[in-house]
Amino acid sequence: MQPMKKGALMTYDLIIENGILLTADEDSHIHKDGLICIAGGEIMFAGPRDKAPERKGARQVVDACGGIIMPGLVNSHTHVPMSIFRGLADDLPLETWLNEHMFPAEASHINPETVRIGTLLSCAEMLLSGTTCFCDGYFYEDAVAQAASETGLRAVLAHGIIDFPAPGVPDPSQNVRASASYAKEWKGKTPLITPSIFCHSPYTCSAETIQNAKKEAAALGVLLQIHAAESKFEHTQSMEQHGLSPVRYLDGLGVLDENTLVVHGVWVDDKDMEILSQKNAAVSVTTHSEMKLASGVAPIPAYLRAGVRVGLGTDGPASNNNHDMFSEMDLTAKIHKALNLDPTELDAATAIALAARMSADAIGLGAVTGSLEKGKRADIIVIDVDAPNMTPMYHPESAVVYAASADNVKHVFVDGRQLVQDGRLTSMDLEKIMDEVRSLAKAIGG
Amino acid sequence: MQPMKKGALMTYDLIIENGILLTADEDSHIHKDGLICIAGGEIMFAGPRDKAPERKGARQVVDACGGIIMPGLVNSHTHVPMSIFRGLADDLPLETWLNEHMFPAEASHINPETVRIGTLLSCAEMLLSGTTCFCDGYFYEDAVAQAASETGLRAVLAHGIIDFPAPGVPDPSQNVRASASYAKEWKGKTPLITPSIFCHSPYTCSAETIQNAKKEAAALGVLLQIHAAESKFEHTQSMEQHGLSPVRYLDGLGVLDENTLVVHGVWVDDKDMEILSQKNAAVSVTTHSEMKLASGVAPIPAYLRAGVRVGLGTDGPASNNNHDMFSEMDLTAKIHKALNLDPTELDAATAIALAARMSADAIGLGAVTGSLEKGKRADIIVIDVDAPNMTPMYHPESAVVYAASADNVKHVFVDGRQLVQDGRLTSMDLEKIMDEVRSLAKAIGG
Ligand SMILES: [Zn+2]
Ligand SMILES: [Zn+2]
Repeated sequence: MQPMKKGALMTYDLIIENGILLTADEDSHIHKDGLICIAGGEIMFAGPRDKAPERKGARQVVDACGGIIMPGLVNSHTHVPMSIFRGLADDLPLETWLNEHMFPAEASHINPETVRIGTLLSCAEMLLSGTTCFCDGYFYEDAVAQAASETGLRAVLAHGIIDFPAPGVPDPSQNVRASASYAKEWKGKTPLITPSIFCHSPYTCSAETIQNAKKEAAALGVLLQIHAAESKFEHTQSMEQHGLSPVRYLDGLGVLDENTLVVHGVWVDDKDMEILSQKNAAVSVTTHSEMKLASGVAPIPAYLRAGVRVGLGTDGPASNNNHDMFSEMDLTAKIHKALNLDPTELDAATAIALAARMSADAIGLGAVTGSLEKGKRADIIVIDVDAPNMTPMYHPESAVVYAASADNVKHVFVDGRQLVQDGRLTSMDLEKIMDEVRSLAKAIGG
Repeated sequence: MQPMKKGALMTYDLIIENGILLTADEDSHIHKDGLICIAGGEIMFAGPRDKAPERKGARQVVDACGGIIMPGLVNSHTHVPMSIFRGLADDLPLETWLNEHMFPAEASHINPETVRIGTLLSCAEMLLSGTTCFCDGYFYEDAVAQAASETGLRAVLAHGIIDFPAPGVPDPSQNVRASASYAKEWKGKTPLITPSIFCHSPYTCSAETIQNAKKEAAALGVLLQIHAAESKFEHTQSMEQHGLSPVRYLDGLGVLDENTLVVHGVWVDDKDMEILSQKNAAVSVTTHSEMKLASGVAPIPAYLRAGVRVGLGTDGPASNNNHDMFSEMDLTAKIHKALNLDPTELDAATAIALAARMSADAIGLGAVTGSLEKGKRADIIVIDVDAPNMTPMYHPESAVVYAASADNVKHVFVDGRQLVQDGRLTSMDLEKIMDEVRSLAKAIGG
């Protein structure tokens, strides 16, 4: 709907009221009796009830029942189709896991139909656990974009580039072209899908490939995603081959700027962080995945002190093994306290900011989502606090990070549209999707 | 019921069937089509369906619907009444948190009624998240034992000893006596409650207090629990005051044996581990709490290599901030991979063993619970796998540790009695308990 003419009282599309509003804005404002007014999918007001504009009413009024109203979480790195490989091979070294399990499984089982069904499963899981926006890189990304569009989630989606035969791109010489052509097709096609370009990594793509990918991304004005500085193995190899750390190597290629997302960034030193800060590149940290694959722990507090843009992600469900951004917040807050022996490090408010506003900024959607502020799109979740793990609740940020689980998510809205109501999906047939994945898993084996 | 006379086919009290049986026995046996027969609260058979005894039937037959049947989780360290302080003060140093927040809050608000209500809330949370047995130390433990008895959970419960005025024990000279008299009263009183004695720590109890407490525990044949080697602060203080690490200090007092549970055990060296191993003392590790309070990370893989008995716990919900043993398994498996840069470290089967069989052994109930084996009591949970995060499922142990959340718990049985059915408590009025806690929280403030 369009706002009505001045003077007349407005009828909103949606009002969410009677909850504790965690804005996750720059100052982490909290309003104990908060209210949000939405029109045309846009937040027109988010603040305390007593400062809300006079209004005629709304087409839909949602009672948060004293729960927590907060921005939908933003998963800044995943590979959604890989849900079909969830738990296929665990407790293994990254290189073994990748070369002996994931790459062969992908070669045998990845096609547009399996990508579609894996994407739907991941989207269901993300929505039910409070994620409203994700950033993805995979193969047959056109199928990802189509499936994601059906679900109503917001996403930044890239077709992957790798210098060997890949699903859908048997000839590696065509890899950058395929990725760029996908990105061109989806540019401006639908408001919720933003295309991007994704180079797998400096150890699977040549310098030329990476530079060409960045050129295409720059020409289209889209984000370049690249895994880098993930494992010790990669770091050592980079030092041997280039005499440079992965970050310095990428910087030398001239591909680091505000439209580049470095995924992982675990093996970095002060100089690497300074480079990332100066170039204003962003880093997506996937704490659970990095720990599970024993890559290490990305130094988020040091990144923040160095002024580097950081977001959180889950990584693909074959390495994590879920899409739970709540446990991502919890672990990210705790691991840096433990490693630095400082319990004041990375407090609850910072963990929420990282998982929402800063993740959105890292993937180029900082103006669109990630906080509840006038002018942003209405990507909103409501957390049920009528649960034993959320009782009592002295400090809502603390409750969200340290006590909540994904199961406490009650309602989810993307772009003003309700996609989860009372813990159930409104836009998807979950049983059908799970049945399809289970049939597929029988063929995949394990 | 009693088993019927030889030759006659038996009617069991309970049969659980049609699920993947994770026995969590010493060899981590898994039966794809498993079945359990229970009579008189005891497991008479747990194994593959095709090897189950011929039977007449059962009074109750539970269809696991293809889900995972596994032992109830055993929380080897918590302070259940502290759920009323959940999230009261976070992101603070352990000593500040304890001295400026927890001890004052306890002095003002702890009484038998608040202990009762906090215990009920924690028991509800534990049951709903698949924990069937817990080990606790607090004040007014008689109220904990009464409340826990009402809920039907299995527990090892100790009244706390501390060398300053404490809730219910204003005169510290009476502290050991109060704890021992509680333990005497509950010894043999009811099958599900095992009393114990709990010294708070070497830094809050004198050598004499600790030794007297151990004497009483030994005389009664019960477990002595003591926090030790938790923080760097404590370690440094111990070195300054005694010239000994906390473990060596306790060993010097002669209180370490197979009936002693050292809680935390973060700040230990090889010699400390050797002592714990030789004395056959057990260690309860509370990974989430230790990381959140920035105490550090207890070296579980090194403990296991040294032959030390180890279990997992959540610690009190004021420091964790929940009772979720699933996230405890997940984090424990991941943190040691990350710290050792070895993804094969602490695999999924080990994480499950730690959270069930080994935790039961650590608290002295190794013969009673913690695995699904003939002769043990029927403490069993059924995990729903019909959920997006559990789909597909190639390896059930991996799914339990890395993908599952507490919300996937569908049925819970303690001593053969069903306490959770389809995710709902059968023995408690959860809404009433939460209402009482919320009223109390208003008085506590925050
Ligand atoms: Zn990735
Ligand atoms: Zn404790």
